[in-house]
Amino acid sequence: MIYLDNSATTLKKPDCVKEAVWNAMEQMGNSGRGGYQTALSASRMIYQARMAVSEFFDLNHPSGVVFTSNATEALNTVIQGLFSKGDHVITTVLEHNSVLRPLYMEQERGVELSIIGADEQADVLYEKLESAIKCNTKAVICTHGSNVTGNLVDIKRIGAVCRAHQLLFIVDASQSAGCIPISMKENQIDILCFTGHKGLMGPQGTGGICIRPQISIRPLKSGGTGVLSFLKEQPQELPEHLEAGTLNGHGIAGLLAAIGWLNRTTVEVVQKKEEKLLRLFYENAKEISKIHFYGRPPEEGVPHLPVLALNLGNLDSAYVSDILAEEYEIYTRAGAHCAPLMHQALKTEKQGCVRFSFSWFNTEEEIKTAVNALKELSRG
Amino acid sequence: MIYLDNSATTLKKPDCVKEAVWNAMEQMGNSGRGGYQTALSASRMIYQARMAVSEFFDLNHPSGVVFTSNATEALNTVIQGLFSKGDHVITTVLEHNSVLRPLYMEQERGVELSIIGADEQADVLYEKLESAIKCNTKAVICTHGSNVTGNLVDIKRIGAVCRAHQLLFIVDASQSAGCIPISMKENQIDILCFTGHKGLMGPQGTGGICIRPQISIRPLKSGGTGVLSFLKEQPQELPEHLEAGTLNGHGIAGLLAAIGWLNRTTVEVVQKKEEKLLRLFYENAKEISKIHFYGRPPEEGVPHLPVLALNLGNLDSAYVSDILAEEYEIYTRAGAHCAPLMHQALKTEKQGCVRFSFSWFNTEEEIKTAVNALKELSRG
Repeated sequence: MIYLDNSATTLKKPDCVKEAVWNAMEQMGNSGRGGYQTALSASRMIYQARMAVSEFFDLNHPSGVVFTSNATEALNTVIQGLFSKGDHVITTVLEHNSVLRPLYMEQERGVELSIIGADEQADVLYEKLESAIKCNTKAVICTHGSNVTGNLVDIKRIGAVCRAHQLLFIVDASQSAGCIPISMKENQIDILCFTGHKGLMGPQGTGGICIRPQISIRPLKSGGTGVLSFLKEQPQELPEHLEAGTLNGHGIAGLLAAIGWLNRTTVEVVQKKEEKLLRLFYENAKEISKIHFYGRPPEEGVPHLPVLALNLGNLDSAYVSDILAEEYEIYTRAGAHCAPLMHQALKTEKQGCVRFSFSWFNTEEEIKTAVNALKELSRG
Repeated sequence: MIYLDNSATTLKKPDCVKEAVWNAMEQMGNSGRGGYQTALSASRMIYQARMAVSEFFDLNHPSGVVFTSNATEALNTVIQGLFSKGDHVITTVLEHNSVLRPLYMEQERGVELSIIGADEQADVLYEKLESAIKCNTKAVICTHGSNVTGNLVDIKRIGAVCRAHQLLFIVDASQSAGCIPISMKENQIDILCFTGHKGLMGPQGTGGICIRPQISIRPLKSGGTGVLSFLKEQPQELPEHLEAGTLNGHGIAGLLAAIGWLNRTTVEVVQKKEEKLLRLFYENAKEISKIHFYGRPPEEGVPHLPVLALNLGNLDSAYVSDILAEEYEIYTRAGAHCAPLMHQALKTEKQGCVRFSFSWFNTEEEIKTAVNALKELSRG
């Protein structure tokens, strides 16, 4: 089996991640719910995880790290908690439904939305950004990289525009976290949403929000916090303000181990390996007759998510993906990848595309086998 | 170490639960996000888990099982998604903040709220229920048992009143699921919210909602669903309607194993053992001078959560709990337990109370040791 759907979830996790989850399930109490050893050590581990995430994304503010069950919950918390009727928000056609659908919900509630298009290479039309800004614009929200084409977004450029116009800059790092180094400081990101189970190599059920100080977000959920129980609403302090109920301590233990593994391996080394696999795939596959790639072609020295989308002539993407799975045990993803506007821009609404996404645990041999399978397939 | 805070989270899990999570972390893809083996087997496992939960609570409707990260998210989804301005809801003073705080949020949005009190034994004043019903009452929401006193609520009685008045009946089974058998059918429950990491013996980060057919709840979150990507909102069908983003597949695998373990052991046998430990504790501890118990005393043949709250004279509950932890390594919980109205009713707002909560993995010896520690402590 060759697993090339790492943008959906990384299938293989470092051993230390599984071990950390196992150990947590043997001995972890409920963080923040008691003053005894097992509860305190749970609280300490969770705080360590906040510190690790804060450092990993260069936030420098551990209490601004809020844990959620995935990036979707993080994005919903931010999008539903930040805007009010009359506010204007700018986003792009590259976004995943986890950004678009909460924004559409906000539109129903009276928030204005502008969506910036993409050029022929599926890159954001950056020059349209400034002219989209209005007097009621509150924020720009965009992905760090397309989950369809793998194109990275120039977040430094957008961050600079946001800072110049005093807009909040919110980044969806679902696809990039763990694959590409991210500094919130350098890119002037105010809020970053991430998931734990993709490039970060953590367990499913983990994710979070990194929030710079002084940004106020209304809670999406309320409930038990283990502190200030007599208040009728969530405590005002982060992270409790946005965290209600028992956290996924077992999962967060795994996420902490995963970030430790990434720090030891270094994201730069991971990125280098994944981009090498990506280019190996692209350079060999581009000769295949009738193959069509979408987005910017991967080039040496130009950062790119370890993701490629393609089609073979007019073949339905689901057909190609199914044959790869059934005849070659090569696992890719077909269809729309929850990014409807990207497909409209690529004119692939009906055909969808076949997405190959790579991870640290893939090998060059797997890549060559996958390219050979595509070659055979293209010959019919 | 003697762990007696199982109402916060069960510390020890059956081995099969840990093994199931480990195996999932070795081989599980992303459910609903691909047509290949590892994704399909993830989808199959998740569906198996829906069937197991549906059967466990006698719902008989697997698609009505929605997975969430905990009971708090389940309750927020239901409370925020069900009511509209002008609706009236009835609840009780026994509730946890995971019910009260979302209801207070709804009050701010124009929902009317009535809260039924408790008698001297901390039981719901059932006779007040019918007179609280108004023409705009939409639902009764209550816990199945107090997380402070361990008193069970007579859900059969409340369910019958709800059915007679055509009200929705919503039950928070956070404390009872896995400890007491629950039939949604027999008790005429329309919506049941549960967490996975307490009596159900599953991993943290799991929980859910069981929803009878034909009940419409607005989504709390929206985002990727893996199906119908070109819709601007969540698909209308359950469970996708209320599930956005990648589920905690690794955790749900553990929850499925936990329910399997409970089915093999049987909840009746678990309940019998836990109630035996509870009565052993109570019968021995009640002789301690200056001890005061809250709620209904455990009696043989009368179901009771494996939970007891007490104080020693006027000693601060946190002081008692700390001494137990530091000098005896006996882990209990002090304070308000996120149930502010229960403490007002018990007049323990300031003192709080020391909660002992038992689980299948506790032993009679542990109970005796705990009672002896309390005896020593009461002597000063």
